[in-house]
Amino acid sequence: MSEKYVYRFSKDFNEGDRNMREILGGKGANLAEMCKIGLEVPPGFTISTASCVHYFRNGNKWAPGLADQVNETVAWLEKTTGKKFGCADNPLLVSVRSGSRASMPGMMDTILNLGLNDEVMEGLAKMTNNRRFALDSYRRFLKMFGDVVLGMKAPKGMHDPFDHILEDVKKRTGKKEDTDLNEAELDEIVSRSKEAIQKATGKPFPTEARDQLTLAINAVFDSWMNNRAIEYRKLYRIPDDWGTAVNVQTMVYGNLGDDCGTGVCFTRDGGTGENVFTGEFLMNAQGEDVVAGIRTPRRVQELNDIMPHAYKTLLDAKVILEKHYGWMQDLEFTIEKEKLYFLQTRDGKSTPMASIRIGVEMLEEGLTTEQKVLSQVEANGVTYLLRPIFDPAAQEAARKEGRKIAKGLNAGPGAASGRVVFFSDEMGDKREEWAEVDSHGKKVPAKTILVRIETSPEDITGMELAEGILTQRGGMTSHAALVARQRGKVCVAGCEAIHIDYQARTLSVGKTVLKEGDWISIDGSTGEVFAGKLETAPSEVLQVLKDKTLKPENAPTYRRFAKLMELADKYRRLDIRTNADAPSEAALAVAFGAQGIGLTRTEHMFFEGDRITSMRKMILATTEEARRAALKELLPRQREDFYGIFKAMEGRPVTVRLLDPPLHEFLPQDAERVAEFSKQSGIPVEDINRRIEELHEFNPMLGHRGCRLGVTYPEITEMQARAIFEAACDLKKEGMDVFPEVMVPLVGHANELRNQEKIVRSVANKVFEEKGLKIDYLVGTMIEVPRAAVTANEIAEVAEFFSFGTNDLTQMGFGMSRDDYGKFMPIYLDNNVGILKTDPFISLDEGIAELVRLAVERGKSTRPDIKLGVCGEHGGEPHSIAKFHKLGLAYVSCSPYRVPVARIAAAQAALGLL
Amino acid sequence: MSEKYVYRFSKDFNEGDRNMREILGGKGANLAEMCKIGLEVPPGFTISTASCVHYFRNGNKWAPGLADQVNETVAWLEKTTGKKFGCADNPLLVSVRSGSRASMPGMMDTILNLGLNDEVMEGLAKMTNNRRFALDSYRRFLKMFGDVVLGMKAPKGMHDPFDHILEDVKKRTGKKEDTDLNEAELDEIVSRSKEAIQKATGKPFPTEARDQLTLAINAVFDSWMNNRAIEYRKLYRIPDDWGTAVNVQTMVYGNLGDDCGTGVCFTRDGGTGENVFTGEFLMNAQGEDVVAGIRTPRRVQELNDIMPHAYKTLLDAKVILEKHYGWMQDLEFTIEKEKLYFLQTRDGKSTPMASIRIGVEMLEEGLTTEQKVLSQVEANGVTYLLRPIFDPAAQEAARKEGRKIAKGLNAGPGAASGRVVFFSDEMGDKREEWAEVDSHGKKVPAKTILVRIETSPEDITGMELAEGILTQRGGMTSHAALVARQRGKVCVAGCEAIHIDYQARTLSVGKTVLKEGDWISIDGSTGEVFAGKLETAPSEVLQVLKDKTLKPENAPTYRRFAKLMELADKYRRLDIRTNADAPSEAALAVAFGAQGIGLTRTEHMFFEGDRITSMRKMILATTEEARRAALKELLPRQREDFYGIFKAMEGRPVTVRLLDPPLHEFLPQDAERVAEFSKQSGIPVEDINRRIEELHEFNPMLGHRGCRLGVTYPEITEMQARAIFEAACDLKKEGMDVFPEVMVPLVGHANELRNQEKIVRSVANKVFEEKGLKIDYLVGTMIEVPRAAVTANEIAEVAEFFSFGTNDLTQMGFGMSRDDYGKFMPIYLDNNVGILKTDPFISLDEGIAELVRLAVERGKSTRPDIKLGVCGEHGGEPHSIAKFHKLGLAYVSCSPYRVPVARIAAAQAALGLL
Repeated sequence: MSEKYVYRFSKDFNEGDRNMREILGGKGANLAEMCKIGLEVPPGFTISTASCVHYFRNGNKWAPGLADQVNETVAWLEKTTGKKFGCADNPLLVSVRSGSRASMPGMMDTILNLGLNDEVMEGLAKMTNNRRFALDSYRRFLKMFGDVVLGMKAPKGMHDPFDHILEDVKKRTGKKEDTDLNEAELDEIVSRSKEAIQKATGKPFPTEARDQLTLAINAVFDSWMNNRAIEYRKLYRIPDDWGTAVNVQTMVYGNLGDDCGTGVCFTRDGGTGENVFTGEFLMNAQGEDVVAGIRTPRRVQELNDIMPHAYKTLLDAKVILEKHYGWMQDLEFTIEKEKLYFLQTRDGKSTPMASIRIGVEMLEEGLTTEQKVLSQVEANGVTYLLRPIFDPAAQEAARKEGRKIAKGLNAGPGAASGRVVFFSDEMGDKREEWAEVDSHGKKVPAKTILVRIETSPEDITGMELAEGILTQRGGMTSHAALVARQRGKVCVAGCEAIHIDYQARTLSVGKTVLKEGDWISIDGSTGEVFAGKLETAPSEVLQVLKDKTLKPENAPTYRRFAKLMELADKYRRLDIRTNADAPSEAALAVAFGAQGIGLTRTEHMFFEGDRITSMRKMILATTEEARRAALKELLPRQREDFYGIFKAMEGRPVTVRLLDPPLHEFLPQDAERVAEFSKQSGIPVEDINRRIEELHEFNPMLGHRGCRLGVTYPEITEMQARAIFEAACDLKKEGMDVFPEVMVPLVGHANELRNQEKIVRSVANKVFEEKGLKIDYLVGTMIEVPRAAVTANEIAEVAEFFSFGTNDLTQMGFGMSRDDYGKFMPIYLDNNVGILKTDPFISLDEGIAELVRLAVERGKSTRPDIKLGVCGEHGGEPHSIAKFHKLGLAYVSCSPYRVPVARIAAAQAALGLL
Repeated sequence: MSEKYVYRFSKDFNEGDRNMREILGGKGANLAEMCKIGLEVPPGFTISTASCVHYFRNGNKWAPGLADQVNETVAWLEKTTGKKFGCADNPLLVSVRSGSRASMPGMMDTILNLGLNDEVMEGLAKMTNNRRFALDSYRRFLKMFGDVVLGMKAPKGMHDPFDHILEDVKKRTGKKEDTDLNEAELDEIVSRSKEAIQKATGKPFPTEARDQLTLAINAVFDSWMNNRAIEYRKLYRIPDDWGTAVNVQTMVYGNLGDDCGTGVCFTRDGGTGENVFTGEFLMNAQGEDVVAGIRTPRRVQELNDIMPHAYKTLLDAKVILEKHYGWMQDLEFTIEKEKLYFLQTRDGKSTPMASIRIGVEMLEEGLTTEQKVLSQVEANGVTYLLRPIFDPAAQEAARKEGRKIAKGLNAGPGAASGRVVFFSDEMGDKREEWAEVDSHGKKVPAKTILVRIETSPEDITGMELAEGILTQRGGMTSHAALVARQRGKVCVAGCEAIHIDYQARTLSVGKTVLKEGDWISIDGSTGEVFAGKLETAPSEVLQVLKDKTLKPENAPTYRRFAKLMELADKYRRLDIRTNADAPSEAALAVAFGAQGIGLTRTEHMFFEGDRITSMRKMILATTEEARRAALKELLPRQREDFYGIFKAMEGRPVTVRLLDPPLHEFLPQDAERVAEFSKQSGIPVEDINRRIEELHEFNPMLGHRGCRLGVTYPEITEMQARAIFEAACDLKKEGMDVFPEVMVPLVGHANELRNQEKIVRSVANKVFEEKGLKIDYLVGTMIEVPRAAVTANEIAEVAEFFSFGTNDLTQMGFGMSRDDYGKFMPIYLDNNVGILKTDPFISLDEGIAELVRLAVERGKSTRPDIKLGVCGEHGGEPHSIAKFHKLGLAYVSCSPYRVPVARIAAAQAALGLL
């Protein structure tokens, strides 16, 4: 007997359930599950993902036995429905849909009304007593089959041949909506569509239903490997070898007449999380019309007015499904002749804000579990709760000044101002073209808003780059809205009042015309659109936590945020620290829950005010004496900084990294500044230039920096150690606990650390003696040099802690400079080349993780209780955090704004969700 | 009972032997051994190295029981000699010498005539009936005791106070030699020496013999930690914690009169290896006079004329000792009243050439073993056999032209031309100051000859940097000669005819005056000195092997070289390959015994002739098409190169590395060359400059290079693969075996290799089809990126071989750029800082070795038969070769001239000698 590849679902005969996602895909498993819990679902069957895998592994051949199983199951379906596949007499029509293990919205192609040909169409007309409907179904089927199965889909920017025929007929007859077309016109469209197929493929349209089915199944398989699908999988880390299942389901018709309709809805508000039914439907339409955003649909609540019993079916299902799945559901339904069928249910996607609200409220309502909530919240998404909103006063003023030009759907919460861009593929270039230079002299790409009539999967890259998305058409579940919420982008969708002219590159509302490059501001929480730039204000969370301008009781978003953090803290095992170089940053991080500082970069302190002059004098000194004199000027400043940071951390551990960057970074970078510094310091220009020349390095990343500075200029380490311990002692005298951890950077050899440790401890002892007290402290090292990782057993003889500097460890471990890798990394990440799946500087690479693992293992072999943490930027990236959790580290450290992200990710890691 | 710290040696009572080096040091063990085999040795005792170790571990305190043991043993010595320590009546005087496990010539201080004071001196005068001798011994003792024990040694460049007194008296009295001084003058010197001691130390000279002994023992201990000793240990990798033994031995006197003398001699010629007694002696002198090189001594053979029976004692001892020790011996002897005593014997140091001759001949004479020979030959030294000699015609011409200005001792074979430098500490600066630019535009430090009246340990660094050393004074065993031979430097010593004026910075012979910076040429094999620069000719070995201008039977040096290689090949287990980029190099390496090519760098091939223009066109191409066109121009050239190299290797495996360096290295480096290339290629200057700008990298070491080029421009890999396989097929058609190993550089991730492997194999198949034949080949990778080392198991899924690129592995593993590390490495190597013992780019670092070990282990876990080799420069360095041997690699690859070195080192490694 051959392997089982086909699984049936129906109220009476049901072979699957929701635990069979791997084999049936998400959609198939849910269809079976819906049947299992008694919902009205059109019967059908699912061809397993294993069939798809077999197909690709065997040169696009079907698995042995699959054809027979499909045939048998079609026979069963005919029996169940009492209809006949490919027969004019009471014909059985089916939909063919993809459905993989992970949800991939908009990525896979769908075919409806399969089974039609001229004859069957007439049979359908007879059966439904509606030839117009039968013709409409037929022309839709021809288009979908032509586009998806026969590969006639027009290339990007070109007009689809079927759309062309449709528009042509509509134009000629003066019909506006598709529904206005009459039978004769539809007859013409059908006939011309068939001609188009003959012309494009050189063959007539396949009229045999079983041929159609076979071709459609293959097309679904093939769509697993189309570029959009590959792109999506890359973005969401879905393995290529999962494959997709194929769902073949009896058609029900939302377009049989005015007692028919179709809709998609969420059991809660996916934009705000509010516990209200949201969604849209269209009467006399097929499902794709809603999702595609071509016609603006009606709010789901309005169904209550049109067809109350159908609305009640939805409301009843909501209670059953939310309790059953433990999450807000995303439903697809079709009403055929007043009977409501469920076509799909799945956990609904929502904005990060909404996820939190849904999770916290469903928990309170007893509908879900803490784990489910943590599994549904995207850790990165929590940052959007911290994103600016428009400054309320500025926003009010803009309204009064008449700068509010339109209102659309609040499809992606948050506030965004940017320059108008109309074409996604130009987004990158425009951001560069309009780039501005910030106060540090760094070039910053321009902020942009993508403005489209509607978006499609081709726009994904442009949407990623934009601050926000504004669309003219489409509802809360349109492509733009779904993607924006998934990626945490600000989005106003379905803003019908605006008119977009791609040719002229303008958007206009009445007399207001905005050109490409003009500023526009959109409020994704209210749906408002403003001409010009609008000032922003801190998020509610920040107004409570940092600015204290809002009381928690008046801040519901903050309260839900706090509840989520409480949940995260309950499950996580990693401590979360922050990287902070100033007291204000430290204080903010503490507000966000940081349990210490994992990295204080002392070099940033040398750039402030006139310190840089002292620093430069130190670098230009030719004798140890002169160097010491300059360092003496720096000492009180460093001490102040440490004092402030220690104080802000209120007794929490603070890891201070000794001077790290090469000295040339501190010297003036151009002739003008050299001249200026020469004037300030009295050092001749040529001496400064000579020193700049001397300090030039071929590979500064691998040069004279890190502990190499401290080894060659021990007086720098002495000064820094003194500043740390004096500040700590001063605070302790004031009664505050201080716990400094002195971190030596760029150690590759135990002796380097030994050398620096000796200096630090000797200065500490001197200071303790001078101040008449002692404080506890640790001396440890960054592990960022590969040699250090593999000799960690030796280094741990000296180091009391390791902090993994995964940025540099990646640079050196991979032999890849972050300043230079832009030249080849895009190609490495290109799916056709397929070297890497993710940028190793964004998410911790497996090979670099192996270096960390070796260091952990070896470090512990010498010092079992060694303190282990991470201070590289990976410390704030969820997937990396999951790796650090598995490696058994004690903490991760990240920038203050990522502390909440890290708290959630750490909990998700502890629960095995990442 | 306390531990035994003191071991006696004498003809009758002997507690040690030569196997006790660890505890007695080399000198102590040999003294005992000499006693054991019946030689006449003045009796004494050895204080163990353990005493020294205890001393340093316990704050410079003696081990418990040591004082008692010393006292008891002194009593025994008094009994054995019948003399009394510290007693005027028949006084016992002793020498106190250091002696560590490893021989450290000239590095440790010695005290002679210990036991003297005013009274004892008079007793000695009476006993020897020679008050002049007693006074002379006394003033020597005072000087040595003052210098060494009381720390009065003058700082560098200053005049020693005792020498000052001596010179002062000599000057005043017009006496030339020390031996000319009379009793009254010596009385004055003694008296003024004691005053100098009182003045310098604030205390009178210690007159108690036992106090003197205690202080002297401590001084020997302390000298273990003096800077010279530490420096020497660093150079020779001797652990600090070995400690030194102290040898206390009854004095015998070479300066009792004309029937006395002292000498050092080698049982063979340490310069040439010839089986003739060599050495020097001085009558009426103490040992230090010979070694110090102050008086030019007489050849040891002349002793036969003066005192035939003493000479016969020496000759008899030679036979006994050579057979006993299996090596040429370095003897110290003293004749007291016609009786010859042996003071020391040890394996003699010799030039590399001499070592080989000695080894091969002693083997033939049945006096030694193959292992002993391999243990005595310094692998690095063999390169000196390959060093140029002066072109015989040019040398003859120079002689005729009267440019030969002097003749000294042939103390270090080889020929060297260079500019005169007088001061060692200026050597580095002068080499830079006079640096020349070679044909590749690279700055090359000037060649220099160090010219000194005599050398001392302070000159070591300068001697290392110089091409050769010329001294005015000192014999074949003077400091200059010993060091030169150990380090393989060309040296002419004791060239009395030259006059050196340090003030004027000139050397003159008659009317010929050479100034600092003038060229001079020295022949270390003949002792000749020539004014000006002399052309050189290839060594005898090369004349046989490469130039075929000499027949082996006429080339005794070559024959010994060949015998040594045969010996090495018998024991080694590592294969030796070569790094070669051209057929001529490949052929040379084969002559030197290379078993294949471990690294062919293809980029060098792109610089030749007009190829660079094609290469530049390729880089400047903006389309794949244009790039392919330029590559098409390069293809036949690369094919030719590979053809030549494969042919030269005659079927041996050849590892070809695909293009590695960043593209910007191939572009013109200055405006002038840009203009020139623009003219050649017709590409506008601004386009070239834009591309140069585009290709600029912040850290080129970590940039767009290695396989990253091949991944981003697959057409480059295609072209290179095509050139390789076409050349291989062409040769195979001609009947020659070819075995290419295609090596992908800078792989960090298995997918990079996978990507390149696919291209290489696909091109190979195409070429095989076109040519109608197949050849065997491998595809593998460099392991030079740390990530590759730790993921070697994954990489070995694709790689058929690993070749460790330890240069880059060190750069990345240590995070240290070779172009930049000069700024801190000297400090890292400084013994006072003590971070590293050796430069990791010269000798493989332990941490980098650990990365290699991981890669070996993991690579084998996936592919047990993976071929493993090394192609970094460490592949030619003996200590690194020993590490590679231990790591179980199959081969090392090095530059052709280092192939013989590697063969020996590999044998030494296999025998556990390294």
